[in-house]
Amino acid sequence: MTGAARFELKLELQELYDAYVTCLDDNDLESWPDFFTDDCFYQIIPRENWDNGLPLATLRCESKAMLRDRVVSLRETSLYAPRYTRHLVSALRITGTDDGVIRTQANYCVLETVVDEATKVFNAGRYLDVVVREGERLRFKEKHCVFDSVIVPTSLVYPI
Amino acid sequence: MTGAARFELKLELQELYDAYVTCLDDNDLESWPDFFTDDCFYQIIPRENWDNGLPLATLRCESKAMLRDRVVSLRETSLYAPRYTRHLVSALRITGTDDGVIRTQANYCVLETVVDEATKVFNAGRYLDVVVREGERLRFKEKHCVFDSVIVPTSLVYPI
Amino acid sequence: MTGAARFELKLELQELYDAYVTCLDDNDLESWPDFFTDDCFYQIIPRENWDNGLPLATLRCESKAMLRDRVVSLRETSLYAPRYTRHLVSALRITGTDDGVIRTQANYCVLETVVDEATKVFNAGRYLDVVVREGERLRFKEKHCVFDSVIVPTSLVYPI
Repeated sequence: MTGAARFELKLELQELYDAYVTCLDDNDLESWPDFFTDDCFYQIIPRENWDNGLPLATLRCESKAMLRDRVVSLRETSLYAPRYTRHLVSALRITGTDDGVIRTQANYCVLETVVDEATKVFNAGRYLDVVVREGERLRFKEKHCVFDSVIVPTSLVYPI
Repeated sequence: MTGAARFELKLELQELYDAYVTCLDDNDLESWPDFFTDDCFYQIIPRENWDNGLPLATLRCESKAMLRDRVVSLRETSLYAPRYTRHLVSALRITGTDDGVIRTQANYCVLETVVDEATKVFNAGRYLDVVVREGERLRFKEKHCVFDSVIVPTSLVYPI
Repeated sequence: MTGAARFELKLELQELYDAYVTCLDDNDLESWPDFFTDDCFYQIIPRENWDNGLPLATLRCESKAMLRDRVVSLRETSLYAPRYTRHLVSALRITGTDDGVIRTQANYCVLETVVDEATKVFNAGRYLDVVVREGERLRFKEKHCVFDSVIVPTSLVYPI
C-alpha cells in the first residue's frame, strides 16, 4: 500500500474510532452495535489472560445480536449509579492489511465521572481490532479490549 | 465535501486544537484570546446544565474583549498556587460545515500538577465548537467546554 | 513547506510517535534504542530544571550505545514490581524544519498499572524532540521528556 493510500486509510480509521468512542461517551448504547459486522466478535479481557492465552473475559459477545441483547439488559437494569465516560484514544496503528481485512491497534483510556465525585481513570489498555469495509462504511469484525489492570470495576459491564 | 478536502480540513482543525492547548499548557494566557473571533462566545459549563438547557456556567465570556479582561484579572490575582496543566485532546470530529461555518467536537482531558504533588486528572469533557476562517487562520467563534464532573475545582477560573 | 507536504510529514511523524510509545507499552525495551540515531541525546528532566536551564536530569543518555546499556541494566535488575504502562500522546506539532532537521513537540501522559492496583496517572509532560531522516526511517536525534511534576516516582528509571 503506497504512502498516500495508507494515509487516507489511516484517517478513515481514525474517523471510525472517533465516532465509536463518541457514541459510547454520548451514552448512545443503541447505536453501538452498528459499529460491528453481524458475525462480529467483541470482548473485554484483562491483559494477563490475553497474554497467557486464557480465554476468560469480563465481557464476551460473539455476534451483533449478542451486542444488542447486552444493550437491552444494560438498559433494563438500574444497579449502577449514573456515570459519564470519556474516552481518549492514542497511537492508532495499522498492523496489517490483507484481502480487505484491516488489522489495527490503539491505546485507550476511559475516564469516569460518577455524580458528586471527581473524574478519575477508570480503565486503560489496548484495542486490538479487525476492521472490514461493508459498502461505504468501515465496521469492526473483531474488537478485543485488552485492559491493563487486573482489578475489574463493577461498571465494567458497560462496553469500552 | 469530498474525501480529500475533508481530510485536509480535519488536519487543519487538528493543528488549531494542538496550537490552542499548547498555548494554555505553556501558560501563554496573553495569546489565548487570539484563537477567537472578536464576537466570540466562550464558556465552561457542567454537562448537567448543558444537557438540561440551563445557562449557568462556571466561566462565560461573550467577546474577545472579555477574554482579554479575564486574562488580566487572572494575572493580577495571586490566589492560586503555581500549577501546570497538560491537555490531551482526542476524537476530534467535524459535525457540520455550512457557508464557511465549521462545527466541531472533541474529547478533552486536562491533567494538573501542583507543586510537590503528583499529576492528576483535573477536568474532562467535550469541546463543542464553531470555527470560522479569518484570512489565513481558523478561529473559534464559539467554544463550549462541557465538563463531566459537577465538582468544580477552585482553579477552574483558568481557561480550558 | 506547502500544505500537502506539511500534512504528509505530520502523518509520518505521527506514525513515528505511535510506534515509539507502542514499543514502550509492549515492554519491548530491546527495540527502543532503534528509534534513535547513533549520536542521539535522550533525557527525562523535570520542567522546573528545564525552564531554569538547570541540567540535572532524572535520566540522561548521550548516545544510542548508552540507551542500550540502560536497557541491559534495567533487564538485569529486578528491584521493581511488574508494571504496565500506557502512553497517550496528543498535540503533536512541527515547530521547525531546516536542512533535514525537524523540530517537534507533543504532550504525553503515561498511565501506570501495578499488579493488584487500579490504573493511575504516572507521569505527564512534553516531548521536545529533534527528528532526522536516516534512509527510509525517521529517528530521534534528540528527545527531551520534560515532565510536569517535581515528584519523581522510583520507576522513572524506565524510558518515557
